[in-house]
Amino acid sequence: MKEFELIKHFFTEQAVRRKDVLLGIGDDCAVVSSAANQSIVVTTDTLVAGVHFPLGTSPKAIGHKAVAVNLSDIAAMGAEPSWISLAITLPEVNDDWLTEFCTGAFELCEYYNVQLIGGDTTQGPLSITITAQGLTPEGKYLSRSGAKPGDWIYVTGELGDAALALQHHKEQVLTDNDIIEQVQRKLEFPKPRVLMGQSLREYASAAIDISDGLLADLGHICQASNVGANIVLDAIPLSDAMNKSQLFDDAIDFALNGGDDYELLFTVSEDNKVGMETALAHAGAKITCIGQTNSSQTISTTLNNKAVPISSSGFQHFSSKKAASTDNNI
Amino acid sequence: MKEFELIKHFFTEQAVRRKDVLLGIGDDCAVVSSAANQSIVVTTDTLVAGVHFPLGTSPKAIGHKAVAVNLSDIAAMGAEPSWISLAITLPEVNDDWLTEFCTGAFELCEYYNVQLIGGDTTQGPLSITITAQGLTPEGKYLSRSGAKPGDWIYVTGELGDAALALQHHKEQVLTDNDIIEQVQRKLEFPKPRVLMGQSLREYASAAIDISDGLLADLGHICQASNVGANIVLDAIPLSDAMNKSQLFDDAIDFALNGGDDYELLFTVSEDNKVGMETALAHAGAKITCIGQTNSSQTISTTLNNKAVPISSSGFQHFSSKKAASTDNNI
Repeated sequence: MKEFELIKHFFTEQAVRRKDVLLGIGDDCAVVSSAANQSIVVTTDTLVAGVHFPLGTSPKAIGHKAVAVNLSDIAAMGAEPSWISLAITLPEVNDDWLTEFCTGAFELCEYYNVQLIGGDTTQGPLSITITAQGLTPEGKYLSRSGAKPGDWIYVTGELGDAALALQHHKEQVLTDNDIIEQVQRKLEFPKPRVLMGQSLREYASAAIDISDGLLADLGHICQASNVGANIVLDAIPLSDAMNKSQLFDDAIDFALNGGDDYELLFTVSEDNKVGMETALAHAGAKITCIGQTNSSQTISTTLNNKAVPISSSGFQHFSSKKAASTDNNI
Repeated sequence: MKEFELIKHFFTEQAVRRKDVLLGIGDDCAVVSSAANQSIVVTTDTLVAGVHFPLGTSPKAIGHKAVAVNLSDIAAMGAEPSWISLAITLPEVNDDWLTEFCTGAFELCEYYNVQLIGGDTTQGPLSITITAQGLTPEGKYLSRSGAKPGDWIYVTGELGDAALALQHHKEQVLTDNDIIEQVQRKLEFPKPRVLMGQSLREYASAAIDISDGLLADLGHICQASNVGANIVLDAIPLSDAMNKSQLFDDAIDFALNGGDDYELLFTVSEDNKVGMETALAHAGAKITCIGQTNSSQTISTTLNNKAVPISSSGFQHFSSKKAASTDNNI
């Protein structure tokens, strides 16, 4: 493996050059700086082949997703992404594969002006770990712990398509090619809600990105904020592809328990509701109010204004149709 | 896998709590801040089982080494390590293994007041990726590119033991248990030269940590600084274990080409030589002058004041007795 050529060719020629990067790729460390009135948010996510994406996933999709899942965490903090470090473990060096991977990874970086500042390439079973960093006004960020009883619960976009795509990958359950393509795209090329996250910074009381599934991630907010919640199942936004191909109960199950959506789930107080909706009206994706927090310690669900039971393990992962299963941010 | 219990138990109960960490483990991102007059250095290194450490390496050694190799990069910049993000991929959750791993990783963090601020746990073939960050006075850091012709070349500690240990692991070449234990310890528990790096910040013209081998890493400095170098082979510091167990030629080969030493290699101008030696006199490890840079474009070596040839591929990895072979910082 001609390591240095590999590195130079694929990773040092990226287009983004930020002024706050004093020293980029090529030394023992990168050197960056933040302004005096900024805080830095930091997240790390790993994708393992066969666990977080099916074997056979296109390298472009893998590259996109590796960056997207990290930017999604930055978005959930209401921060502006700035720098990423990329650690990639490859069974072998394959120029075509790397070219495609870089296309997927770096077009997202270019779009959001995120600079690759370093990383590591190693030989082994395929996996990608990215540490992404972002900037936010000093001490101003969205966390999971700020929700109060009575806050409204919102999600961006539509839920469940990625999980449906994954089920199709395993069991070939879909027959309509248009639908397969639509849900496959949601699984492979999730859009991190970066601009919406920044717009929410002034309005939301709590936020998280939906990677584990709506119920599990709402559970994280509830646990961190010490609140309960009720979800109106009829309000959960579903895609046309989902509605056309699935019975309602199955669709809701995908949306509640599927994961891999990378939409934002957030809470807003009654006072901030109108301001938030106005601010996000042109932010690039729809938002939907799906329920309300309360002072219970549980998550309940209603359908047609009637309570319907959900699993008692509401604060843990559900296993039925979970997409990417065993990762766990720490 | 009871993921949340795993996370809470092993990673959130760490002792280090820094004031510059506004939000630690448990949200979508950590939030940290640097002072207005500081720069931040960032590095990422991956260890893959069977590639960067032999299968069967103790989890404590793996934990130590995963942190140490990253702090070594921070040291080579002359910075003070501050935060790490830990991405660990495990075939299965094993409490005993994780306890030992954490012992190895976090005793080093505690010693240097480095806080774990986040990461990811995933299922898959064993590998560990750490992103470490550090702080340094604004714009003041050691790079590979500052060496001038005529600078003196130094290394900390002694070289080659880790490579000897790795060869023994593969071929059982050693017979003396004391020697095996000594070199094994150098391979498994390298000491990042954090304090020496910080002391060097005022004096060194260039620095790097020796991970790829003395010749390869000197090559990186020469290339980045546009200088050549001569190494006095008789001056290269070797351990007693090495001297007792190896012929001189083999010992020098381990030192030149072995890698995994995690000692610092640095250059100092004639003017800063005495100041540097005084400053480092009590910094915890010996330093040895092993040669001098020059205005050629090559690395030469001398023995008994006579030139001796080395491989012509001086700016690339040597393969003969290289320790951990295929990683590559970008």
